[in-house]
Formats: sequence, structure tokens, C-alpha cells
Amino acid sequence: MAKHIYAFGGSSTEGDRTMRDTLGGKGANLAEMCRAGIPVPPGFTVATDVCNLYFEAGNKTPGHVEIEMAEHLAKLEKMTGKKFGDDSDPLLLSVRSGAKFSMPGMMDTILNLGLNDKSVVGLAKKSGNERFALDSYRRFIQMFSDVVLDVPKHDFEELLGEMKEKKGRALDTELTAEEWKEIIEAFKKLVTDRLGKSFPQDALTQLQMARDAVFRSWNTPRANHYRRMNDISHTIGTAVNVQMMVFGNLGETSATGVGFTRNPATGENEFYGEFLTNAQGEDVVAGIRTPRPISELKDELPEAYDELRKITHNLEQNYQDIQDFEFTIEDKVLYMLQTRSGKRTGPAAVRIAVEMVGEGLIDKKTAVMRVEPNQLDQMLHPVLDKESSGSLKLLTKALPASPGAAVGKIVFSADDAVAWKDKGEAVILVRAETTPDDIHGMEVAKGILTSRGGMTSHAAVVARGMGAPCVAGAEEIKVDYRGKQITVAGVTLKEGDWLSLDGSTGEVFGGQAKTVDPDTESGQLAEFMTWVDEFRTTGVRANAETPRDAAQARKFGAEGIGLARTEHMFFEGDRIKYVQQMILSKDVAKRQAALDKLLPEQRKDFYELFKVMDGYPVIIRTLDPPLHEFLPKREELMVEVAEGRAKGQDMTEKQKLLDRVEELHEFNPMLGHRGCRLGITFPEITKMQAQAIFEAAAQCAKEGIKVIPEVMIPLVGNVKELADQKKIVKDIADAVLKAAGVDVHYMIGTMIEVPRGALTADEVAKEADFFSFGTNDLTQTTYGFSRDDSGPFIKDYIAKGIFEEDPFQVLDQNGVGQLIKMAIEKGRKTNPKLEIGICGEHGGEPKSVKFCVNAGLNYVSCSPFRVPIARLAAAQAAIANSEK
Amino acid sequence: MAKHIYAFGGSSTEGDRTMRDTLGGKGANLAEMCRAGIPVPPGFTVATDVCNLYFEAGNKTPGHVEIEMAEHLAKLEKMTGKKFGDDSDPLLLSVRSGAKFSMPGMMDTILNLGLNDKSVVGLAKKSGNERFALDSYRRFIQMFSDVVLDVPKHDFEELLGEMKEKKGRALDTELTAEEWKEIIEAFKKLVTDRLGKSFPQDALTQLQMARDAVFRSWNTPRANHYRRMNDISHTIGTAVNVQMMVFGNLGETSATGVGFTRNPATGENEFYGEFLTNAQGEDVVAGIRTPRPISELKDELPEAYDELRKITHNLEQNYQDIQDFEFTIEDKVLYMLQTRSGKRTGPAAVRIAVEMVGEGLIDKKTAVMRVEPNQLDQMLHPVLDKESSGSLKLLTKALPASPGAAVGKIVFSADDAVAWKDKGEAVILVRAETTPDDIHGMEVAKGILTSRGGMTSHAAVVARGMGAPCVAGAEEIKVDYRGKQITVAGVTLKEGDWLSLDGSTGEVFGGQAKTVDPDTESGQLAEFMTWVDEFRTTGVRANAETPRDAAQARKFGAEGIGLARTEHMFFEGDRIKYVQQMILSKDVAKRQAALDKLLPEQRKDFYELFKVMDGYPVIIRTLDPPLHEFLPKREELMVEVAEGRAKGQDMTEKQKLLDRVEELHEFNPMLGHRGCRLGITFPEITKMQAQAIFEAAAQCAKEGIKVIPEVMIPLVGNVKELADQKKIVKDIADAVLKAAGVDVHYMIGTMIEVPRGALTADEVAKEADFFSFGTNDLTQTTYGFSRDDSGPFIKDYIAKGIFEEDPFQVLDQNGVGQLIKMAIEKGRKTNPKLEIGICGEHGGEPKSVKFCVNAGLNYVSCSPFRVPIARLAAAQAAIANSEK
Repeated sequence: MAKHIYAFGGSSTEGDRTMRDTLGGKGANLAEMCRAGIPVPPGFTVATDVCNLYFEAGNKTPGHVEIEMAEHLAKLEKMTGKKFGDDSDPLLLSVRSGAKFSMPGMMDTILNLGLNDKSVVGLAKKSGNERFALDSYRRFIQMFSDVVLDVPKHDFEELLGEMKEKKGRALDTELTAEEWKEIIEAFKKLVTDRLGKSFPQDALTQLQMARDAVFRSWNTPRANHYRRMNDISHTIGTAVNVQMMVFGNLGETSATGVGFTRNPATGENEFYGEFLTNAQGEDVVAGIRTPRPISELKDELPEAYDELRKITHNLEQNYQDIQDFEFTIEDKVLYMLQTRSGKRTGPAAVRIAVEMVGEGLIDKKTAVMRVEPNQLDQMLHPVLDKESSGSLKLLTKALPASPGAAVGKIVFSADDAVAWKDKGEAVILVRAETTPDDIHGMEVAKGILTSRGGMTSHAAVVARGMGAPCVAGAEEIKVDYRGKQITVAGVTLKEGDWLSLDGSTGEVFGGQAKTVDPDTESGQLAEFMTWVDEFRTTGVRANAETPRDAAQARKFGAEGIGLARTEHMFFEGDRIKYVQQMILSKDVAKRQAALDKLLPEQRKDFYELFKVMDGYPVIIRTLDPPLHEFLPKREELMVEVAEGRAKGQDMTEKQKLLDRVEELHEFNPMLGHRGCRLGITFPEITKMQAQAIFEAAAQCAKEGIKVIPEVMIPLVGNVKELADQKKIVKDIADAVLKAAGVDVHYMIGTMIEVPRGALTADEVAKEADFFSFGTNDLTQTTYGFSRDDSGPFIKDYIAKGIFEEDPFQVLDQNGVGQLIKMAIEKGRKTNPKLEIGICGEHGGEPKSVKFCVNAGLNYVSCSPFRVPIARLAAAQAAIANSEK
Repeated sequence: MAKHIYAFGGSSTEGDRTMRDTLGGKGANLAEMCRAGIPVPPGFTVATDVCNLYFEAGNKTPGHVEIEMAEHLAKLEKMTGKKFGDDSDPLLLSVRSGAKFSMPGMMDTILNLGLNDKSVVGLAKKSGNERFALDSYRRFIQMFSDVVLDVPKHDFEELLGEMKEKKGRALDTELTAEEWKEIIEAFKKLVTDRLGKSFPQDALTQLQMARDAVFRSWNTPRANHYRRMNDISHTIGTAVNVQMMVFGNLGETSATGVGFTRNPATGENEFYGEFLTNAQGEDVVAGIRTPRPISELKDELPEAYDELRKITHNLEQNYQDIQDFEFTIEDKVLYMLQTRSGKRTGPAAVRIAVEMVGEGLIDKKTAVMRVEPNQLDQMLHPVLDKESSGSLKLLTKALPASPGAAVGKIVFSADDAVAWKDKGEAVILVRAETTPDDIHGMEVAKGILTSRGGMTSHAAVVARGMGAPCVAGAEEIKVDYRGKQITVAGVTLKEGDWLSLDGSTGEVFGGQAKTVDPDTESGQLAEFMTWVDEFRTTGVRANAETPRDAAQARKFGAEGIGLARTEHMFFEGDRIKYVQQMILSKDVAKRQAALDKLLPEQRKDFYELFKVMDGYPVIIRTLDPPLHEFLPKREELMVEVAEGRAKGQDMTEKQKLLDRVEELHEFNPMLGHRGCRLGITFPEITKMQAQAIFEAAAQCAKEGIKVIPEVMIPLVGNVKELADQKKIVKDIADAVLKAAGVDVHYMIGTMIEVPRGALTADEVAKEADFFSFGTNDLTQTTYGFSRDDSGPFIKDYIAKGIFEEDPFQVLDQNGVGQLIKMAIEKGRKTNPKLEIGICGEHGGEPKSVKFCVNAGLNYVSCSPFRVPIARLAAAQAAIANSEK
């Protein structure tokens, strides 16, 4: 018969820290501490595989495990000299879950198990402290009923409150022993009323029920959801730790507490934690009594404190990581109840990693693996000052679309944003949704708030690109453009009222919060990132088109521009006028005249971009969006014309404009006349852009700037589309460079962003110098739903477990990833020199970056503020691969 | 050295009919006729591979071919007893192109080659007919200059016209020999003026230039386009046929003509053709003189006529197909110049095939291969009576979106269509575009005309489904709903004016044309289709949801319903009211109340459909389109509210409706909340539909109707979507059938219509009983453009050769086809019993059907009127496969 239960405690410890698979994290660490001679109350761990046996047997623990447990109980009784279920000196137990990975949503702890109506009397006698014994028993009834019997803790608390009121007691500690007895009877009656049977008095039955409840807690929806979100297998099961009770509530020489070996918020190397004297574990976190800083323990119980410091220091040395520990002091004797790696904030993670390398505790590679890539985000943006924000009114919490804090006055249009900004005001742009029309307003706003759209809506994507804080999809907010006000949570705010956003949490506050600038110039972060780059094998570029964003990207370590969206340049200043003129022209000559006006502007854009990226490649995408994005909105024009007519005004000119807008109207703009389709039907647009790019490149070359232009043709599904546009670009490039007498190496490639591009990548690669995966569009077309329109059902999909994650945030490796792998394989087969990257939003998402590294991409490209995250994720993937 | 030139004529003939690859169709047939002892003027064929040699050498015929040709010329001189280029009795030649497949756009014929200023005098003397000689020479100059020298024929005609006017001559025949000489000088001067060099006088140079011109004509844009359209390889090249001239213009005992062994329009077994006496080939088609019916040749030249009948009869027997032939009679002696399989109309193709089987000339398999599937279309719809239509005004020609003729009075809305129909009027529904809102009007209209949208626009798809004639995308027509009129080609037509459409040609006529009903009950067509089914191995179903369409489909041989679109049923009668109520309800209870109203209606729909399809499977798709398709249009509401407000009206209620419509508004409905996404977020809709389907099925089963329901879940991209909906359907199906006490076999499957469904087909197949490829949507998402929005650029794409065909009409085998093959392979791997079909528009397109048969689909499904076409295409694919 296989072994299913492992003892720990002194010399009879059977496990160690390597046995996390079998014992779970908690069990393995308890065994390890025992082996290290650390005082741990003895006990045993029911192994994780029993959890599977339990479910396989139809929610029943097999008989042979019950026998094995009985044997372990007997050994434990022998070791402690107490008997489980004994009336006079009962062995009491704690029962705790413990999976391989720490998991919220699972049963936590039951204390004082083994008490019943009789043994509580024995405990009182033995301890000489009746109130302690009664307090322990009522706590046990409460915890056991809540966790095992499904009678909510809250109901007991209510009952206790009523009793206290009836007796005129303010605090628990004021209750007499007689009153506690009365309360215990009431608690038991509550259980009997609810369940139709009485609270179990048999100690072994209590233990079996508690153990099985731990197993069941493995399968709650919340636990299942957490595992899905974190890629943890459902079949690894949880262990159950059964351990002798020690009591922090035996009087003023007893205490209980939790702590960290370093400050988990800042990473500072200081002993950190809280404790309470005369208390049991849950009191520290319950908030009824205020715990004291752990430094004060030194004055209360100096010997126990010194031992605790020594032990935890050794634990950190042993585990080479910050430890999160629990302890109890029973009448001056210290017991360790748990140790594990401590969760920490981003800044703390970096500081601890760097300092531990300095201390010689870990090497650089380990340090790089210790920081979650997404945690870096917290260090790159200003944050709301918690204290000042705390006093503000939380209006709603929506999607944390672009991190950072923003504080400003409400405006409702991009034009107003610019006007107010010019007057020196800080503004928050509030829109139902944003469009490319709003870019100029988004650029000057401190933050953006939308009432519609998801994490990849226009507002979210653009805001992240700019590094501007954004809260999106705040559906509870009613935006009234006409009245220039918003209504939410019963509050109405008008234009000019203060608003504060936390783009990292999605919180929206009324009023003016203070913000704190993060220390992005920190020596430790900078040092850490140099280590990251030592291990990284995949390039990281940025998606940026303005010199400001490009400079930011360089500062964050981008090794080039992976995507410069030329259309963003079309909205600046007077340009939109010429763009509209170009679109509204029905003949080539007039269109050309408008393009001639745009040429010098575009040339200037590219020149500045090349200058910032001196020595690094710059991928410029030719015009991509449908043309009507540059025109007034159709439905707004329709309304204007109808209103005007109703008022008897002459609407002839507006009607003409509307007619043209109607002609350009598309039912599904995302699936319409855009991408290379524009350049194919209007070759003069591609020509103008190529002219601008290569004239700028030639100018740079003459000035000694090292320029590496790469022209990217979007939305190619057929190699002939690429060939058509490539010829236009190449002819102009060669002519311009020859005329200028300079030699500039350039490339022409394509985005792979519709499935057909991937399916026929072998053909496309024959015409392409590079591929860049546009995974936003590729996700849209592979699934057949758009970023803008999928919000309403993707939420339902995730709630129902159909999706584990939003595929616009985390790359769908099974579907979209299959196309990416296919395109890489087919593309490299016909063109081994093909340079391959990714420029969709996924290029800055750690799991997706890992996929890209493993798929063999040359680089990933993402918005500037995600560049450090992508660098770290890429380095971690490279390390993981090197260790395979 | 390989042989490149093959002689024909009498005993020295080197080729035969099997050598089409080498000699082209014309050359092989000339050789074959010679072998059969048929009088053919002798000559030789320059083989097709010389065409490639010519291009490979940079537009130059290699020297060794020139030598070989000189040898053949010498042999030909010997055989004819004349010398090429001789002054006194010149050998004259015709030069004709001849590829393996007959191709428009290539050079046709040069006659009288070898004439020059001197030999024309010899020819005059020898023939004793100076006017004949001069006429032959001026024709030669004209033809040679036009085809070889690029001096357009038109310029010569103009010159000839001027000369005639100057001389006061009305007809060519009135010109004197002297005048012809003057004209010849003028012709030669024209060439010299244009080219800067004189007309070539050397006979061999003439021949070489003519031959090379034939090669060049292989590579004209028109020829290239034709090959692309017809899947003919660019590398097979054309042959050149060089042949001794015989003269039909030697006087009244000479003649020339063309004919068919049967009537190519009707298929009737009658000798059919036209001739002219004293004429050369091009006169018959040039329209200057009116050719006479071939039967009259019997009176003019009875012996030659009898021989012609005998020869052509034997040719038909020999080739076992209708022959299209050319002949010349030179002074009572008959010469055959060409024979080939004759092009024929659809009705003729069927009649000829059936009658030739009856005559024992061909077998059934050959008969089935002889009819182009698309040709059947002509036999299924009423057609415009050409004569009455000829007198009408052709307003425009647009897309032939749904075949057949329609004549009716113009109406501009679906409601008007119904109202007018109720008054007994025949109506044509004219819309800028149609939407599902218009279905009730489309159903009663004789035909549909839209000014926007392509071959797969809503109007086109629905019209084809109904078998209603439709002309779509008539962009020249300006539709003015407000004024209830259309303007096109300077004509304004108002509501109630007569309009006639030809949906087979795309022609739109003002006025009331007469129509002819085709003989669809024809015994020959019916017989032919039974043969088709003998060879067919793939099933054919129909896309239909009304009992009328289903009955039509059965009549056309459909073996089940491959797609019943339940949403079409939502627009009938009062239902739309409940549908809107369902959509506008914000809580489940109200939504359920509306669904309860719809349930009995849907049940009735399904009951009637099952009854018509007794014994055949019926695939019913659950609700698919985005919900706002059932609501009033957003922009129309916006305008209404704005107008009302401007006029000071109370718009509160309308504003509420608008608010809800706004909530449901999607940027890209095609990529939004539709398909199974609806059923997942509103499970009560799927429940209602399942209830209706299985209650109807149970009722049928009780009445002894054999019902085979298959429920299809649309737009699945992830197996969990299917699993979710399947469970809902299955639970209800089992409960309903159990309660009714009947046993009905049913299936639950899915559409594969987004790339991810195909990419993960192995997973999806585990939950699916069947797959049906929705190739309309799959094409949209694979390419990333929608049917409705791609019109403007797909035209450009085809014009530029980026696309060879509209992928919404002909399945894109390289891209979409790759996904289909992948899905079949993956799907059958995990579920070998998977039933696989196609229900996109491509299911009725012959090339696509062939692909489906080869890919191993169990059936194809298409609109009822395409069922016979699909049956034939499937049979031909099966035959082709069996002969591999």
C-alpha cells in the first residue's frame, strides 16, 4: 500500500522542502522547518493524492487512508503525551489546507479541533483558565460550522452581538465564563436548527469531516477559476495539514503573529510584521483588536522575539527568498506555524532581488526570475496617493485600461481638452467612447475615462500607447454630452469638476486626489534591467509614432520602432483638412494636390522619428484605417441636416458632404476598404508616403544619422497585394535615394494580420523582407469578433468558463498561435532570412511574449510603457528555455 | 534536334487529333481531317512549344525553327506546284493561331499572305480576274497591318470610305481596278507614314512576321485575363497554322461559310449555318453583306453542298460531338478550313447530349460531362422575350445577381410592395440596399433591383435563395426615397412606372417587357438529371426555410435541407413585434414572455418544413444575426428624434427606444454579438428554438412523417461554445421527445465559419455530430473583408489581376480551402462518424462543388435554384475522379 500520510515534528519528520508535489507548499515547509530544528508543533500531512482518491470515490476518503491516519494520530498522541478526544487533557489540533501553489478560495484553517462539551471542561481544569477553554471552544464551533457545515460565520457573529447587547457587554473580554457557556449553547442550537442534527461531539469524526471539507474546497468555483487564470492543473489536488494546537491565548505571556523577513511593500530589508498577545491566529487579521508592530514584541517577550528573528533570518537564508511566516508563543515558548515565500509589490520585488544579489544570497539569473513582468508596471507610472484618495468618493470601478494616476477637470470633447489645456488646466477627457478624431484631446489630457469599450478599445489602446492613464468601460457612468455632465452612483459632475482616476485599478474618484511620481530613475531598477538584458535573446521594440513617445521608448530600452502608425499623424494641426480634401476628391488630380500638401508634413514626422531612433530600425506602416475615420460622423451629419431642414435652413452643402460620406459608409469598417486595399485603389497615397519616408531617410543619411527604415504594408492576405505595393515603394525609394546620392539599407515587409496571410505565408514571404504579426486584427479575424464589439459577451464567456482570458489581452495560443506558428514555418521555408516580429497589443503581455520567444520571433514590439515588461518577460522565457 | 513543325495535307500528314498539346486544337483537327480524306488545303503547323522558345529567346524565333519552316515551305511548294513569293503564280497562305483551347483575344487570321506589288500582277494574270487579285491584296494589307504592324483596321476602312466618296461609289463592288490600285497605294502610304518604313514586300518576311505576331498575341492582357478566368496555364503556348489559300472570292461558283452540325441555340438536330458566294472568310461575319442561310447553298452549288453535309456528318460521328466548321468553295471545289466542338446554349447542350445518347453516339457518362453546370441556370428561370425587350430602353447594366426575368411596377419599400401586391399589381422592389427588414417585400416582388452591394449582398443572396430575379449594385441609378423616384441615364422613373429586369445579364429596362417561361418540366432535362444522379457520389441539399422554397428544392432534387435560417422566420406577420419586445426587455421574465409568444409560431414553421421534407434531413440553425437587425435603424431614429426636437415635439419615448438601440449598436455587426454568442448570453432564446423544433418533430413523428432534425449552432470558434449550446438543446430535445413518447433520431452540430473553428476542429468535433462549412463567413474572416463592404475594391483587385475571381463567388481554394481541408482532417480524426457539408453560397458554384467533392464532403447545400447545378457539378467531379 502506498504511503499517503507523512509525519512531521522533531526526529520523526518524514518529508522535506523538495516534496511540494506530495505535501503541498505548507506541508513541505513545515517538514523542512522541523528538519532544521525549528520549533514546530508536531503533526502530519495527508498527501495531495488523497484529494484525488476522495473525488474518485465519490467524495469519500478511502478506508485505508482512515487506518493510516489513525496510526499517525496514535504516534502524535505518544509524542505529545496527550490523547485526542480525551476528557481531561485533550490533544487539540489545527487543520489546514495546503496545495502545491498558494491558492485563494480554498479552506484556510480550523483551530482547536477535538474540543467538545466534555473536553472543554478538562481543558479548563488543565489550563486553570476557564475563560480560555470556553473561548477556544466557541471559536472552534464557529470555524468548524462555517467551513465544514456551511453555517456562515456571520450568523454566529450576529448571535454573539445580540448576546453582548442583552448582557450589556461592549467587548468580548468583558463576557463572563457563565455568559460564554450560554453563548456556546446558543451556537450549538443554531447549528442544530440549521442542519437538523447536533454539532459533532466525537473528535475523530470532527477531524474526518474537517479533512474532507478541505478536499471539497479544492473544487469550489472560485478555486477552479483561480487555477484556470493561473494555469494550475486541476488534478494536482491539495494536501491537509493536521497539527497539534499551541495557544497564543493562554494569557499575557502568550501571543500570536505574522510577519515578513523584509518589507513586502517597499522591499526594505527590515523585520516586518504584527502580533497580538493573548490571542489566536484569526484575531490578528479580524480587525476586532488592532495588532501591534512586531518591533514591540521585543519589549513584551524579548527572548521569544530574538529567537523569532534568528529563526526567520535562517529561513530566508535557507530559502533564499523573503519569507512570510506565522508564529505563536505559548507561555513564552515560540512555535513556528508556517513559512513561505512572501508576496511582494513590484518595487519590493525589484529591490529584494537586487539586494539579495548584493548580499550574495542569489545570483542574477535567479533575481531576474523573481520579478513578475507585470509588476514593473507599478514602477513606471505616477500613482494615486492612497491617503489623499482615501478621503475621496469612489464613484465606480471599471476596467484598468492604462495604468497610472490622473487628476484633472472634466471635459467632454477633444477640442475642449485642447482649449482648457491651453488655459493651463489639467483635464480628464470623458467620452462614451473615443475615436481617432479625439487623438489631439487624448494627447493633452492627464487621463481618459470612457463609459464603453473594453481593455482593447480605441481609448485603451491609444492611452496605453501614450502612457496616459485610462479607465474604460465605466458602464455605470451616464455621459450626457448635451448637458455636459456625468451621472454615476447618484452623483452628478459637470464640466470643470475635479475627477481622479487610477488606471491601475480602474477606480474613479470624484474630487482632486494627490499623486506620487514613482522613482523610475532608481538605480536598482536600472541595474535590474541590465541583468534582464544579459539573459534576453529576443529583441524588444516599441509601437510609437511621435518623437515624444519614441524618446520615452528609448528611455525604457526599446531597440527600435516595431510599428509607427502613420494615420495618427494625419490628425495633427491643419493636416486633417488636407486629408479630408484628399478623400472627398473624386479625381486623381485633386487628390494629388491634397497629397502634395501632406508630403512635407509627413516627411518632417519621419525625419524626427528617425533622428530619435538613430541607429535603430523604424518600421513605418502605410495608411491603414478606413477613410471615413477622417471624415465627420455620418449619423451626426444626418442629424445636422435633418435638424437644419426642420428649421428651414439651407442644407445643400452639408447634404453634398453627407452624400459623399454615405458613399464611403461601411457596414463593417473593420472588414472594409482599409489597409493595403487603400494603397491598391489609391496608389498615390502609398506613393506620397514612400516619398516622405525616403526623402526623410536621405536627409538623415546626409546628416550622419544612422537610419534603418522598414516599410510595412498592412492587411495583406494575398501575395499579389504585397507585390503591388512593394513595387510602388521600391521604385520611389530607389529613385529618391539615387537622386540624393546616399546609400540607405531599407526593407519592405508586411503585417500578418488576417488568417489568409498566415495560411499563404510561403507565398507572401517570397515578396517580404519581414513579417510582423498584427495580433489584434489576427485575433479579430481568427475568432470572428472585433475588439470594439466583443465587450458585452466576452465578460459572459469568462464568467461561464468558455474563455479563460480575454484573447485580446492574452494571446490565444491554441487558435491564433497556431496560425502564427504556421506562418513562421511556411515563411522561413521560402525565405530563410525573413525577419519576424509582433506588433499587436500582445507584444507587451508576459505570457504572450513567452509564446513569441518560444515560437522563434526575432523581436516583440509594444507600447513604450510596456517595453520594460516585455524585456523582462523575454528574458525569463529565454532562461526557462535554457534550463529545459 | 526536336521536331517543331508538322505537315498536313493528303498522305504527308504528320499529326492527328490526339496531338492537341503539340498542334493546338485547330492544327490537330486539320491533321485529323486530312487523315480522314477530307479535302483540306495543305499546309503545316508550327508547334505550341515554339511559342515558349520565342518568348524565352526574348521575342525571337530560333534559327533552327526558321530552317525547319523553310523545309516545310519547300515541301508545300512541291505539293501545290506553286512557289511562295513567285511573281507569276504565287503560293498564297493563310496564317492562323491555334492554342489547345479556343481563346478569344488572340490573333485570328491573316489571309492572302505572300502577295506583294509584283505577285498581285501575276495572280491577276493567272486567275484572269484583276479585280479579284487587287481585292485580295488590299485585304491582305489591311489584315496584316492591323494584326502584325499595329495599324488599326479602322484607319484603312476610313481611308477606303473617303476614296469611295471621292469617286462617288456606294459599294466596294462598284470600284474599278484602277481605283483599287489607287486605294492600294494609299493603304501602303498609310503604313509608311505610320511606321516610317514601307509595307514588307518579301513573302518570307511576311510569313515570319505573321507567325511571330501570333506568338505575341498569346501574351496580350485580354488573353492573359481569359486564361486566368478559365484556369488555362500560361505556359502551354499557341501553335501557328500555315495553310495554302483557297479562294471563295473567285466568282459566283466560289463561296465561303461557317456552320454547325446541329442548332447551337436550341440543340435541334438540323444542319445550321451561313454562307456567301464570291467572298472571303471575314465577309461572312463583317456584316457588310448579309450572309444567306446554309440551306440555300443547296440550290447554288448542290454538289459542294451535298459533300459538305456528308463530310460534316462524318466529322460529328468521328468527334462524337456537335461540330462548328468553316469551309470555302473555290470554283465548285469544297475545302474544309476548320472543325471544332461547337459552343452551345444550356438548352442546346442538354438536348444534344440526350439525343446523342439516343443515337448511340455517346454514352451517359460522356453526356453528363458535356453540359456546363452553370448552363442549366438558363433552363430554370423565366427569361425576357428578346424581341419585346429589344424595343425597350436599356437603362443600365449591373450585376446579374439572381437569374431570371422580372417585370413589374416600381415600388420603394417592402411595405409598399406588399400593399401593391395585395391590390393585384406585379411589383419590382427598388432599394439602395436591402436588409432583413425587407424580406416580406422581397417575397412578394417579381424582382429586386438595388443600387448598391455585390453578388453576395443581402439582396443577391436572399433573391437567389428565393429564386427571385435580382439585379444588384446598379450604381448608375440614383434612388430617391423621398421623391419616390429613380434617375438613370437621363431618365426619371416614378413609383408605379414599369420596369423590366434580366437577372441573368444584369440588364435593366424601362417599360414592360414580355417574358417566356422555360420548359423546366422538359422530359430531356429530367432524363438528363437522372443520369447525373447515377454518377453523383456527393449529396446535394438546399438552403431553405419556407415550405414554398423547400418544395421547390425537392422538385429540383434536393436531398434535404442543409440550412434553414430561423431568423428569416422572425420577420413574418406579428412576430417582429415580439422579437423586438424580447430584445428590448432588460429582464429575463419579460424576455421569456415575448419568447413564449414566438414559440407556437416557430413550432408551426418547423412542422411545415418537416412535412415537406418527409424522409429527408433538415438542418436548422439557431438564431444567428445581431439583434439590432430586428430593431429600427439607429441613424433613422436619431434623425427622427432630432427632427422632432427641432419642431418642438415630445420625443421622450422615441429617445428611450433610441437609448436601447444605442446600447445594442455595434461598430462591426458582422464581428459582434451574433451567432452562438447570442444563445450563450441569452440561453432562453436557444431554449425556445429547441422547444419549437422538437415539439414539431414529435408531432410529425406521431403523424407518421419521417422527421430527421439536425440542430446547427452557428459561429463556433471554441468547443466550449458548442458544448454550452448543445447541452441546452439536448436537454430539451430529450425531455420533449420523452414526454411525447416518440423516438426521433436527431443530431447536433455546428457551422465551421470562423478560422478558429477550423483550426481547433479536432476539439470541436468531439462535441459535434456534424460540421457544415459556412463559407460566406469563413471567406470574410479568412480574408478580413466583408461581403457587404468589399464591393468597391474587389472590382479593382480583379482588374489588376490581384484576384482572379471574387472569392465570395468562387471558393478560394488556396486560403479558405486550406482551412476546410484542415478542419475535415482534424475533425474526422477525433470523430470518424462526423457528417460534413457546406452551406455557404459556394455550395452551388460548380468549381467550388468540385473542390468539395474532392475534399470528401458528404454533401453540398445551396439555394433551391442552384440544386440542379450542384448535382451536375458533383456528378462531373465524381466522374473525373473515377477516371484518374
